[in-house]
Amino acid sequence: MIKYLKTDPWKIIEDSFHSHLQRSSESIFSIGNGKFGQRANHEEDFSGPSLHGSYIAGVYYPDKTRVGWWKNGYPEYFAKVLNSANWIGLSIHVNDEILDLNIWNVESFERVLDMKQGLLQRSFIATSPYGKRIQVVAERFCSMANDDLAAIRYEVKALDEDVVLFVNTFIEAEVRNHDSNYDELFWKSIRSQANENTGSVQAETLKTGFQVAWAMEVHDSKNSNWTATQNAHRVESTTKIQIQSGESVVFHKYVSIVSSLNEQVESLSQIASNKAQQAAVVGYEELRSAHIQAWGKIWELGDICIEGDDEAQQGIRFNIFHLNQTYTGQDARLNIGPKGFTGEKYGGSTYWDTEAYCLPFYQSTRQSHVAKQLLVYRYTQLDKAIENAEKLGFTNGAALYPMVTMNGEECHNEWEITFEEIHRNGAIAYAIYNYVKYTGDEAHLGECGFDVLLGIARFWSQRVNWSDAKQAYVMLGVTGPNEYENNVNNNFYTNYIAAWCMKYTKEVGEKLQSENATLFNEKCKKWNLDFQAENAAWQTRIDNMYYPKFENSIIFLQQDGFMDKEQLSIADLKLEERPINQHWSWDRILRSIFIKQADVLQGFFFFEEDFTMEELKANFDFYEPKTVHESSLSPCVHAILAAKLGYEDKAYEMYVRTSRLDIDDYNHEAHEGLHITSMAGTWMSVVMGFGGMRVKNGELVFEHTLLPKKWKSLTFNVLFRNKQLRISLNESGVQIA
Amino acid sequence: MIKYLKTDPWKIIEDSFHSHLQRSSESIFSIGNGKFGQRANHEEDFSGPSLHGSYIAGVYYPDKTRVGWWKNGYPEYFAKVLNSANWIGLSIHVNDEILDLNIWNVESFERVLDMKQGLLQRSFIATSPYGKRIQVVAERFCSMANDDLAAIRYEVKALDEDVVLFVNTFIEAEVRNHDSNYDELFWKSIRSQANENTGSVQAETLKTGFQVAWAMEVHDSKNSNWTATQNAHRVESTTKIQIQSGESVVFHKYVSIVSSLNEQVESLSQIASNKAQQAAVVGYEELRSAHIQAWGKIWELGDICIEGDDEAQQGIRFNIFHLNQTYTGQDARLNIGPKGFTGEKYGGSTYWDTEAYCLPFYQSTRQSHVAKQLLVYRYTQLDKAIENAEKLGFTNGAALYPMVTMNGEECHNEWEITFEEIHRNGAIAYAIYNYVKYTGDEAHLGECGFDVLLGIARFWSQRVNWSDAKQAYVMLGVTGPNEYENNVNNNFYTNYIAAWCMKYTKEVGEKLQSENATLFNEKCKKWNLDFQAENAAWQTRIDNMYYPKFENSIIFLQQDGFMDKEQLSIADLKLEERPINQHWSWDRILRSIFIKQADVLQGFFFFEEDFTMEELKANFDFYEPKTVHESSLSPCVHAILAAKLGYEDKAYEMYVRTSRLDIDDYNHEAHEGLHITSMAGTWMSVVMGFGGMRVKNGELVFEHTLLPKKWKSLTFNVLFRNKQLRISLNESGVQIA
Repeated sequence: MIKYLKTDPWKIIEDSFHSHLQRSSESIFSIGNGKFGQRANHEEDFSGPSLHGSYIAGVYYPDKTRVGWWKNGYPEYFAKVLNSANWIGLSIHVNDEILDLNIWNVESFERVLDMKQGLLQRSFIATSPYGKRIQVVAERFCSMANDDLAAIRYEVKALDEDVVLFVNTFIEAEVRNHDSNYDELFWKSIRSQANENTGSVQAETLKTGFQVAWAMEVHDSKNSNWTATQNAHRVESTTKIQIQSGESVVFHKYVSIVSSLNEQVESLSQIASNKAQQAAVVGYEELRSAHIQAWGKIWELGDICIEGDDEAQQGIRFNIFHLNQTYTGQDARLNIGPKGFTGEKYGGSTYWDTEAYCLPFYQSTRQSHVAKQLLVYRYTQLDKAIENAEKLGFTNGAALYPMVTMNGEECHNEWEITFEEIHRNGAIAYAIYNYVKYTGDEAHLGECGFDVLLGIARFWSQRVNWSDAKQAYVMLGVTGPNEYENNVNNNFYTNYIAAWCMKYTKEVGEKLQSENATLFNEKCKKWNLDFQAENAAWQTRIDNMYYPKFENSIIFLQQDGFMDKEQLSIADLKLEERPINQHWSWDRILRSIFIKQADVLQGFFFFEEDFTMEELKANFDFYEPKTVHESSLSPCVHAILAAKLGYEDKAYEMYVRTSRLDIDDYNHEAHEGLHITSMAGTWMSVVMGFGGMRVKNGELVFEHTLLPKKWKSLTFNVLFRNKQLRISLNESGVQIA
Repeated sequence: MIKYLKTDPWKIIEDSFHSHLQRSSESIFSIGNGKFGQRANHEEDFSGPSLHGSYIAGVYYPDKTRVGWWKNGYPEYFAKVLNSANWIGLSIHVNDEILDLNIWNVESFERVLDMKQGLLQRSFIATSPYGKRIQVVAERFCSMANDDLAAIRYEVKALDEDVVLFVNTFIEAEVRNHDSNYDELFWKSIRSQANENTGSVQAETLKTGFQVAWAMEVHDSKNSNWTATQNAHRVESTTKIQIQSGESVVFHKYVSIVSSLNEQVESLSQIASNKAQQAAVVGYEELRSAHIQAWGKIWELGDICIEGDDEAQQGIRFNIFHLNQTYTGQDARLNIGPKGFTGEKYGGSTYWDTEAYCLPFYQSTRQSHVAKQLLVYRYTQLDKAIENAEKLGFTNGAALYPMVTMNGEECHNEWEITFEEIHRNGAIAYAIYNYVKYTGDEAHLGECGFDVLLGIARFWSQRVNWSDAKQAYVMLGVTGPNEYENNVNNNFYTNYIAAWCMKYTKEVGEKLQSENATLFNEKCKKWNLDFQAENAAWQTRIDNMYYPKFENSIIFLQQDGFMDKEQLSIADLKLEERPINQHWSWDRILRSIFIKQADVLQGFFFFEEDFTMEELKANFDFYEPKTVHESSLSPCVHAILAAKLGYEDKAYEMYVRTSRLDIDDYNHEAHEGLHITSMAGTWMSVVMGFGGMRVKNGELVFEHTLLPKKWKSLTFNVLFRNKQLRISLNESGVQIA
């Protein structure tokens, strides 16, 4: 853990300057608005460690695959979230000295992420090597009210003597990805234009051909004259301003970012310029108010209050904040990248995290179309999922959704994951079930759901094989959610969800058939479906699926052979060996009993109604002591189940771990970006864990609630079938309003 | 199959020009002398497809590892066989036209690999675009009699009119590896010098700091004046010669190559120059005679004659020829690279192929020190094998030899192979057993063998774990010889050889203890060995090792869960799906029943005395129909076992496949280099398969012989305990002389 941030219910606060932690802070203090996002890089120059990162949702580059040893079936490319133009740049010379906190002496420093208002604020007093002392107060936001806009307010005050400021504010579009496989440039410039205090750059991504235009307009409180210069990939406006000791000058930079995802290529620069200009006319304060108001509405729908535990309170709000600025559900082509707008690690935008972890958050805290967009995303990519399955030898419309994707094509390249971590297909089906159950939107099944389910059921039906030895259907060569096992046989979770998918598809098909025969017959024709025959095949597999179980017990085994492992528990691990993924060789991890993340227990979480409390207890007690939680997606599931079992300490421990994973940097990786998708797991651990929220018979119920000792009360808002509910939990019980 | 070469008992003949197959021919016609080797590139310019390749044994470069996803424990580098200076270069202009068979009209062409004499010969008649017609007769060899030398004879005849030849002969040391991970240059030039008809270049490998000097001296039959030029990495001598129609000129190029492996760095260039000069004094014919004589001795020791089947005859000689020019046993730092001197694929020099396949060939057909060097190689790398095991979490002197290495350090980076294909350790122990059994050199055990065995036994002892469920020792997470299964539990072959290693180590230890207590006590001290205690631990593991077996049968299962697979055989595969490694995705291959190479049967081959003929037959009959032989190392083992079982057709089919794998280019990969190590398997399939040769009680015996119908007789030479034996097999039986 690295604890350097102050606790506050609504804010993340860094109250002194940590040059060596700048990269972590850049991640933690990131801001975005669903359409674009920006790491908390300094506006002015900074020569210390930094990962400049500016990302635009849906704009990606297919980087050539890099592997050591090629395996048949690997995709040719890995889609990378694209680092894009630097639009925050505001380079300042004080007299002849460049303002650079890595060189200047910083005497006070505060950085604040105001989560309630969606503002990134920073102020500092610093002295140059030659003794010039200034104060800076900066603020910026990516507008939630108008998601093509961002604005910066940057105030410089001369503290001890008169100074001359040379100011250069710019947009720089020649930017590289830090994780480029072959150090190639992913952008080419199309056009740029600059005039006095305005400028715009338009650039195109190589190969994918997305175009983006960035435009800026800058003003200062002394109404200076600005001079513009430009080259193909950069525009800048410069001015020179004299300020007296004690005097301030305020700069406002209005930025617009528009892309060919939403606008015609020919007009991009013009649209961006117009928008930046209009923003300047509206003015900073008014833009800011609208933005704060938009955040107000978000919090109204989805805030969680924890009284009596500021760390817990800060943690959950931090998670909710990032989830909302990463994805707003405005565009069905977008999804929730593992790092959101906070870094470029892992590329891709879409993992099974979306369906297994993120969906419940968005369907409960935003209008229902937001969650639905996530289902539509997969529906529109169904053809690609069928193609993907065909590449792996499947036929007849079987669909395998990719492990990692941008546009529906697989872009991951690790055989044990790409080809074998196929349980992701199950989560996509489960999300349909989950969405319909929560929202009651049965029509979705006929519109999109059944088509997706059919492709998935066909996949599972072909993926299992009959074992003469076991007299059952088995599934060989898979990787379960626990990636500390690879290429195993009969992973309980995968077998279970596979059978469940076939069962659910059958049910949905039968329902559609009886309720809307015309539509159903169209689907049969479209998908070349002999429903009776395929149904029968599914039923045979459902009835005869093999589930590994520990002899004479109610413990389901994670996979065949699990009991052959050396039977250890976490108590046997030395502290200096943890996390084991940083200390043990991969083979040792694989053959050990230690589990990276909930696997059998993931199944108990999804399908809790299929198991008794006794079974849950036995399996939790068996697996929790073997689970090292080295995936960010693990503690939340354990928190929920622990809460259900009344294991207060364990539930609380897991909650703190998931909610403060990045703030306290448990895994020393915040500098690479935040764990955005696991943040939705945090939300689940509160609402479904401590809050015990479930949907039963079309109603929201709150069973198995658990209020940690430290908490005076827990209050959370959810939106259920167009009703806004406020659930309060305190020592006297649950109140629903 | 690509059949374009003529059959001949002693020669490989390409009798017309195949520009598109040039890269394959370059591999097949490669020549070497154990110290260096050269692909059959043309001396003159060639603008067609070509892989220029010149390699020096033991000179390598640690190329930075390239992987998609880093796994803990991966090595930082992959040792690459280094492509090195072009020393054959003889660029010829006829009048103003450059001689280039890719551009000239080739009217007759013959390329011959004279295996008996170790000569590469080429002759052609070609006409230039402007109609100049010449004949070339070229010959070269890498001297087996003096392994620092090579020589080229190159004769040009003007056919229809007088011509002027502009000749430029050179050494060019700025050469790149085609398989460089980051397209870096691996060499830097140190010095060069040139004078008239002589020149030398000295260069150093980056990072590893090997130095090599190449020197040349050129003469021509018209005693022309030569002019030298040079730059840092290249020397060249040029001349201009007029020849009349019908007249020839003959060039002789004498080359010496010496390296810092054997000489002082400061004198390298001088030594090479002196040697080239002396070679020129001796003259081409005398060098050639000495070289042919050296090859004569090699054939005397190790030739195999097959009467009645020229294809089979050519095949086996081709294999024997390449094995001898790849490795001569002069230097214990060298080993047998998978491609020898014929290409750079797979890097490294040493795989388990050496011990499992190559050792029997060298110990039977060369003086016994040759095979012994291979054991010494591993002995000197024991410390690195212990380090390697430590990196993977093993302790107390446990040794894991690398999957791929140059200097003893692991340099492979595929977790399922690097960390898990650990059966290689067993083959290294088995080679000690095999060598001692064949040569009777018991002293080797005290000198080196026991130390290596101890490290290996300790590794296995730690690598297994007790399974409560099975009440036996199990070995989890391994990859057997059949690489179409990864990360499996209880691979029969690996478990078996692990137990055998512990057993053999125990026996050798007890023998040493009783025969030379002083030496044994020294070893105990050196290796911190409490023999009694470790012995007991080994015995417990030997006694309680788990071997997967098919219920109620004598079939050993390749691994746990093998019978859960869909039970198919090769008859179920469509022709267009084969080889499956080019048509199926990797996961499909893994979960299928199809076997890449002998696995259980590899165990039956190594430990044949442990199994009955009935068991062999049952297991062969079970596994052979499931084996696709997509490893070059597979058919030979099946050939031997089939011969033993009297399955003549199968044995013959497997023999042809292994012996002509490269000549007939079964897998369409000869252009990348030849399968050198599997060539030793070919030798085994003849001598141990058809010839039935075994060592029993210190005697050579020939049991289970099988003479294929087509063969009138089979005769082979072996050297056994300093006795040269000639074994003849014909319809009347076996004769030993």
